[in-house]
Amino acid sequence: MSEIFPKVALLGIGLIGSSMAHAMRRSGVAGHIAGYSHRLETLEAAQEVGFADSLSIDPAECVRDADLVVLATPVGTFGSLAEKIAEHLKPGAILSDVGSVKTAVIRDVAPHVPEGVHFIPAHPIAGTEQSGPKAGFAELFDGRWCILTPPPGTDAAAVAKLQSFWEALGSQVEVMEAARHDLVLAITSHVPHLIAYNIVGTADDLETVTQSDVIKFSAGGFRDFTRIAASDPTMWRDVFLNNREAVLEVLGRFSEDLSALQRAIRWGDGDALFTLFARTRAIRRSIVDAGQDTAAPNFGRGAKADEKKDQ
Amino acid sequence: MSEIFPKVALLGIGLIGSSMAHAMRRSGVAGHIAGYSHRLETLEAAQEVGFADSLSIDPAECVRDADLVVLATPVGTFGSLAEKIAEHLKPGAILSDVGSVKTAVIRDVAPHVPEGVHFIPAHPIAGTEQSGPKAGFAELFDGRWCILTPPPGTDAAAVAKLQSFWEALGSQVEVMEAARHDLVLAITSHVPHLIAYNIVGTADDLETVTQSDVIKFSAGGFRDFTRIAASDPTMWRDVFLNNREAVLEVLGRFSEDLSALQRAIRWGDGDALFTLFARTRAIRRSIVDAGQDTAAPNFGRGAKADEKKDQ
Repeated sequence: MSEIFPKVALLGIGLIGSSMAHAMRRSGVAGHIAGYSHRLETLEAAQEVGFADSLSIDPAECVRDADLVVLATPVGTFGSLAEKIAEHLKPGAILSDVGSVKTAVIRDVAPHVPEGVHFIPAHPIAGTEQSGPKAGFAELFDGRWCILTPPPGTDAAAVAKLQSFWEALGSQVEVMEAARHDLVLAITSHVPHLIAYNIVGTADDLETVTQSDVIKFSAGGFRDFTRIAASDPTMWRDVFLNNREAVLEVLGRFSEDLSALQRAIRWGDGDALFTLFARTRAIRRSIVDAGQDTAAPNFGRGAKADEKKDQ
Repeated sequence: MSEIFPKVALLGIGLIGSSMAHAMRRSGVAGHIAGYSHRLETLEAAQEVGFADSLSIDPAECVRDADLVVLATPVGTFGSLAEKIAEHLKPGAILSDVGSVKTAVIRDVAPHVPEGVHFIPAHPIAGTEQSGPKAGFAELFDGRWCILTPPPGTDAAAVAKLQSFWEALGSQVEVMEAARHDLVLAITSHVPHLIAYNIVGTADDLETVTQSDVIKFSAGGFRDFTRIAASDPTMWRDVFLNNREAVLEVLGRFSEDLSALQRAIRWGDGDALFTLFARTRAIRRSIVDAGQDTAAPNFGRGAKADEKKDQ
């Protein structure tokens, strides 16, 4: 793979930023990789792993002469960060991000983007429940989708360039409108996370069941939810604060459907339960067929959990 | 490991029954393994895999001379099955089950248990989203918990024998009251399954988001729910019909908590969201430390999903 951007600036070097750096190294698409964090501790950890060519606590210094600048901090910080770097951006540079919401990011960032800089919001649909500069790895984006939401009138050549970049990092790329992205992600990611956080909180609060019981018997299904509910709290707080409308819309539908199920249980309506339970199997099959999850039972984790146990 | 039961009868040879057979073979705790199914197709599949010494479509024949009889069909069938086998049970035999609910099983089965037969309900907390006689494997119960709920007055020696049996199959064993089991499982298993089925159904019904979008972008969190929502529909229908009170109680708490989160999102209360999101991380850590799940990011499945994709 040949170089696409002589210098890439990563504003934020947590799970996503550091994984991008590893994937850039693997593919050779970036000349110089610059990293920024506002925390000294994070910079030291990044230094230790060694995925960046330069590291700075000053965002303006990080973006200087960069051909691609990527906002990769929690989305609640994008507005003030964009304001700080605006006058230091190189003419012709691409300014992008990896935030999980897109309408709010455009609202917060677009006003600060100087003439001659191409602002192309992006969202790689990839992650793990871990966070920080030591959690990143080069394969994170392999086979996953990255959604670009360029505002109307964005330079087509710049969009094509950013698309090539994400493809070089292992992703498949799709372009859509920001509002559509926010609705799709509300159902495929945001509401599932909210529900997972919620059920884990409910379990933790029950007076009638001890936490020790919950932990011991979690293999019945609960443990899957705890993985998602272990995701970065700051990132997710900002997601919900910034995708309010779509999340509330999907959540309303979810609650309605749950009430109907609750009623079916109360009145012993086995047919209604069976019909739903049989229907949802097909969706799992489609996801496995699309290469978006493993076909192995229990995500193929059985052996690994046991290794851990035996330690 | 030495033989504990000269003959074990498995009434039901799906995921759990067939896994028990494999684990019995591995440990040598059973002399003869007899299997029953009411479906010829299932018997043929079991024959092909070869985990049983004898197979029958007649439950009475299957349990003849058995020292341990295990009900391993969906719990809604236990009552009529117990009635059919009652007079064929050997005096001194242990009658057990693997059902995910225990109070209802005692209600349905106990009236049919003849004098001299030890009825000891059991529930191995283990499973995958797959079902049928070809889905079983010997390691399913390794490191998982099996809960025994012997009614008051049950012969202690028989309970100890069944405990040794499950330990030989790889499990850790805990004894508790049936009502307590049902409440604990409502939170660790039943309500999580209901929520997973529900969100997958909600996603499938949205007019504003296509199913293709849901499938493509499922790596954001949704795909985890689809695994659970791919579990056996008949088994789960029976679970909800037979653990109604505990499920409705936990579901009520879940819905209350979800309404509070919904309100926090609507009013932009970031602190309330952050507080919950930070708290739930600790529970994940405890589950991993207890050996009930893998510590690897994304359940360690990344590589496997990609292999599948590359096929």
